Parts: sequence; structure tokens; C-alpha cells
Amino acid sequence: MREIGRQEIEDIAMGATVLGTGGGGDPYIGKLMALQAVEEFGPIQVISADELDDDALVVPCGMQGAPTVLIEKPPSGKEMFASFETIESFLGKKVSAVMPFEVGGVNSMLPLVLAASMRLPVVDADGMGRAFPEVQMEVFSLNGVSASPMVVSDEKGNTALFQAIDNVWAERLSRKATIQMGASAMIACYIMNGSEVKTSSLHHTLTFAEEIGRSIRIAKTNNEDAVKKVLEVTRGFELFRGKVIDINRKTDGGFAKGVATIEGVDPFTEETLTINFQNELLLAKSGGRVLCMTPDLISVLDMETGRPITTEGLRYGSRCVVIGIPCNEQWRTEKGIATAGPGYFGYDADYVPVENLIRGGE
Amino acid sequence: MREIGRQEIEDIAMGATVLGTGGGGDPYIGKLMALQAVEEFGPIQVISADELDDDALVVPCGMQGAPTVLIEKPPSGKEMFASFETIESFLGKKVSAVMPFEVGGVNSMLPLVLAASMRLPVVDADGMGRAFPEVQMEVFSLNGVSASPMVVSDEKGNTALFQAIDNVWAERLSRKATIQMGASAMIACYIMNGSEVKTSSLHHTLTFAEEIGRSIRIAKTNNEDAVKKVLEVTRGFELFRGKVIDINRKTDGGFAKGVATIEGVDPFTEETLTINFQNELLLAKSGGRVLCMTPDLISVLDMETGRPITTEGLRYGSRCVVIGIPCNEQWRTEKGIATAGPGYFGYDADYVPVENLIRGGE
Repeated sequence: MREIGRQEIEDIAMGATVLGTGGGGDPYIGKLMALQAVEEFGPIQVISADELDDDALVVPCGMQGAPTVLIEKPPSGKEMFASFETIESFLGKKVSAVMPFEVGGVNSMLPLVLAASMRLPVVDADGMGRAFPEVQMEVFSLNGVSASPMVVSDEKGNTALFQAIDNVWAERLSRKATIQMGASAMIACYIMNGSEVKTSSLHHTLTFAEEIGRSIRIAKTNNEDAVKKVLEVTRGFELFRGKVIDINRKTDGGFAKGVATIEGVDPFTEETLTINFQNELLLAKSGGRVLCMTPDLISVLDMETGRPITTEGLRYGSRCVVIGIPCNEQWRTEKGIATAGPGYFGYDADYVPVENLIRGGE
Repeated sequence: MREIGRQEIEDIAMGATVLGTGGGGDPYIGKLMALQAVEEFGPIQVISADELDDDALVVPCGMQGAPTVLIEKPPSGKEMFASFETIESFLGKKVSAVMPFEVGGVNSMLPLVLAASMRLPVVDADGMGRAFPEVQMEVFSLNGVSASPMVVSDEKGNTALFQAIDNVWAERLSRKATIQMGASAMIACYIMNGSEVKTSSLHHTLTFAEEIGRSIRIAKTNNEDAVKKVLEVTRGFELFRGKVIDINRKTDGGFAKGVATIEGVDPFTEETLTINFQNELLLAKSGGRVLCMTPDLISVLDMETGRPITTEGLRYGSRCVVIGIPCNEQWRTEKGIATAGPGYFGYDADYVPVENLIRGGE
């Protein structure tokens, strides 16, 4: 167990934006909420999965919906309390700890808000090690954990509890509720006991996010190359360096979908990079060649500061470095690739790990 | 308490089709299920609201969605058991009795199926005294009863439990779940204790449906005018007599919507009647004059047999009598008209009771 405060929250938020791969929602609002909660309730207890009692009731939680909407309709906080009441009365058991189901983006922060305000510890683990747009895209799911009972709640006070036959149905049903609630809602799903968390989650991912964030912060202080530091901490690869020249973006079916085009900085080349996204950046391609694809992580960093840029933050003229980060090995299994690989998102590409794509091209 | 069997089920189904005002789903599938349940489990106990213990847990239940879809995707029965399990584990209490929330159409039958197979009594009461297309259109709602917790479940095994801030939100959220589940699902809502049922429901409406059905059956046996008998039992009015010449029907947003046009039988007049429907028949108009409108009941009966014809049963050439039946007085309050009057459905008409419209025109 360790306690975290303002500095750690800032670092986690920064790192989670890198792991958010452009999506997952800008953690900014979540960060403000977490800082406010720490101000009000004191430091947050972070525990590792191994510290959990085997029968502890652990509730992964966060938001669902289009991050672009989240900016306009921030959570009130109340909705999560309502979710927890629903869970506790449905399961007849008190919640022992909260946990992110997604360490990328705003969903790294919301469990911290709840942990502080409900005086519960937060588990240093998640189910993605990054951000993904759909409920079933969790290593929890790969490990046979059910997303149900799943609770969706809005800032008005509506809650919905789903018991779906599988995790794809949990996604479908919860997504419709979220859209009806205004395209952004709070969710709790993959409720587990302690022993399930130990065997079915990705451990120490909050700490991993914090390390990434800290490396960017320290690089600035020390006048070091922040992008290089991020690549070191994440064991990632530089894919492309350039300037954003086009963003094609729409909100469709509760997702922010589109394509970003980046022009190389070298004035003597016409090379460009395109990145397809559906909330998250999913496929980076240049000169007809795929450079990195889901479930590996694609992240866009500011060329000067190394700070991550979300898809909604991408602007014409942004000077950036696009990096690729190897995903957790669990995502590289047959089931992992079927769940969150390029084929699932409709891209005509067979998954090849980013390190092979990059090294193969050297 | 009385027990009912095959004959009563047949009569209730027939009467409920009249009260279904063209919608509410043809009770045919529900009737078959109820007959099968009686065959298997024995007679069904029907109790009046006054016989309920004040703290009895009473669950109004039925289906939601487009009746046209129900015909293609009949309920499996399992979904209702799943709903009840969800309710019991959520409320921590056993269900004492079931009840129709709608005595019109198929939803008169489904509580009977459940009553038989779960060996629970069914309460002789409902919340409409007819059929209506939306969840909040219940005298329960007019009397301040919450539709939540509301459960939606499908034949695949998915269930959703909603706690909505009001009954319009219960409608919105449950409707989206129903559409996602395939445009037809089983629901349980307006869960009440016995004392609430006593004060907030329409009493003896199953018996009323049975009386209507019996009058049609007996008229046939006695070679009497069945339409006249129905008008006597319901204190209704003949609005129009003619032949269906056009049906404009589409399934939209989970509803069967459209307009039926009926040509008068008198060959020397060009008079026609149009009926607008949204699952139910809502507004009957002829010669620029409204003859009957929601919340009063509009029903189409076969000219020869007096048997009701549902909107999905209306065919070109059907020879029919359109009748208007005064609704329960609770629907004629300001709140009742706001909830289910012509304005709510987008018709530019102020509500006038059918008896005034008819007598005023005589």
C-alpha cells in the first residue's frame, strides 16, 4: 500500500494520456476531479492486486461514451455513488476496493476520484494496459470474467443494471443506455473478487502510467528529450515525425471516429502518415505500409514537450511525433487479436507486432 | 379468489383484443402460451386487489416492443423467470403475485402464463384498462407510483434493470434496451406492495375483458348481433361501418405506426374514416370531424362476427365496424390527458370524450 497525492495524480494523468492512444478521453476533467477529491478527503490509498483479500469485492469503474461529449457534459460524481448503491444492494455485499478497467485516458482518473470520496483503496491494475473503445475489450474478458452485472448511470440519477449473456451483449446493451443518457455515462463492470483480480488483471499499470508521466515531467525540468524518455520507459518506437495537415472526425454510434493525416517534416519528401481512430488511434500507415496497429499502442506526442495529444486535441499544424508501444502479451494471443486486433475494427490487415514491423523495415 | 381455465382464457384473450384497440399485440401467441401453461400446471388463481396483503410484493409484467415483431419472435418464457430472479435478488423479497400492467392485447395473457408456471396468483387489475404504447402511460404513474426498478429481459438470457429518475426516463431507457434486444422483450415494472395496488390500479379489468369476450362468444352461439353485444358490455358507440381500403404501416423506433383508411359501406357516399395508430388506434376521423380519440378506446370489429381485428390483422377489404369506448375517468383528468391524450401523440386536437363527440353529432 502507498498513498498518492497531487504530484502522483498529475503524473498518472499524463502517462494515462500516452496509454490512452489518443482516445480514452482527455484525463483533464478527471484529473481536476481527482485533485479536488484529494484536497477534500486526503491522499488516496493505492494497493497492489496481491494485497487484496481473496473475497474482497472489487469494482472496476469509469466512463463510457464519446470523449468529445464528456468535455461538454462532465460527470457529476453522484452517478457513481448511485452505481455503487445498486451494486451493493444487488450483490448484498459491500465494495472493498475500486479499480480502473482502463488505464488509458480519463478512466485512469475516475476510480481515483471515487477511491478518495468513498475512502476506498484503488487497485494498481486494470484490464487493458491502455484504452480501448468497447466493453468486451478487456483481458478480464480474455480470462473468462463476465462484465455483468454491469451498471450504467448518468448525472441525472438514472441507473441501469445489465446481466448480459456475454460481454459483447454487455457492450451492446450498455452502449444503447449510454447513448440514451446523452452519449456519456458512468459504468461499473467486471466486478470481481480479490482472487479473480490477482489472476485476471494487468498488474501495476497505474504505476506504469505514473512512470511515463514522471519521465515527461522530469525531462522538461532537466531539459532532456521527453519523447526519447517516453520511448525508454515504454520500450516504444518512433513511427513518424511531422505536422498534422488533416483531421476527419465525426461522432457516430457513440464513438468519435475518423482519420488524422500527418505530413513529414522533411520538406524534400511527400511522405505522410495516416492514423485511423475510433476513440483510440488504431492503425498507423505510411507509404502503403502499416507501421503499428491495434492492439499495440499508437500515441501522438508533442514534438517539443513530449506531452501526449489526444485525438480531440489534434489540430491543423500540430507538430508531433507518432510512437508505437508494444501491448501486453495477453493481447497478442489468438483471442486477444480476435477481440481487439485490426480485423475487429474492420481494417484489412493481419496483426504483426510493432517491433517486427519497425525492425523488419530497418 | 377464483380459478380460471381454458374457457376464461379464451374469453379474456378475445376481450383483451377489443381493449387492445388494435394494438397491444394480438393475444394469439400469449393465449396459446396461457392454455399450454394451464394444461401443464392446472388452473390459475385470480384474486381481486382487495384480497392482497398490504405488504405483498406484486409485479406487473408483460412484453414491450412492436407487436409485429412479437409474431416473428415469440417469448421463450425463460426471460420472465430471469426478470423475477433479478427483482427478488434486488429487492431481497419474494414475489407474491403477478398482474397485468395492460389489460389490452397480449399483455393480458403473459401474466397468466407466469402465474400458472410460477404458481402465483394473478391480480384482477391493471394500469390502463386498455392498451397504450409507452411505459409511463399507466394510471399507476398518474397515482405517483414509480415504474422503477424496471426489468427488461430477452429470450437469449439478457436482463437489464433500470432505476430511472421518472417514468418517462423508464420508457426511454427500457425502449432502447428492447430495441437492442430485437424490438421485442419482456418487462416488469411498477412493482408495488398490496396497499399500493389497492389504491393505484384499475380494478376488475381482467374480468371486464372476460365479459367482453364472453359476450362475443355467446352472441355467436345465440345468433345475436355480436357488435351490439360488445357495445352493451362496454357502453361503447358505433363510429363507422365500412371496408378497409388502405393501410399505411411501418415499424419505427420500436413502434408499429401508420394510418388505416376505411370506406363507408353506403355506395352513394364517398365518406371514409381514417384511423391513426402507434401500436394502438389513437384517433378516428371522418369528414374532417374527429369521432373518437385517445385516451378513449377505438376498436375495429369484424362486421359479421364482432371479433376484434388488430392493426396487424387489418387487410384490404376487411369489412368492419369501428367502435369507440369511453376510457376510465382517471384518464380524463388533466394529468391523464397530458400523459396519453391526443396532444402527446402529436395530433392537433383537444380531447373531448367520445360520448360528447357522438351525442354532439347526433
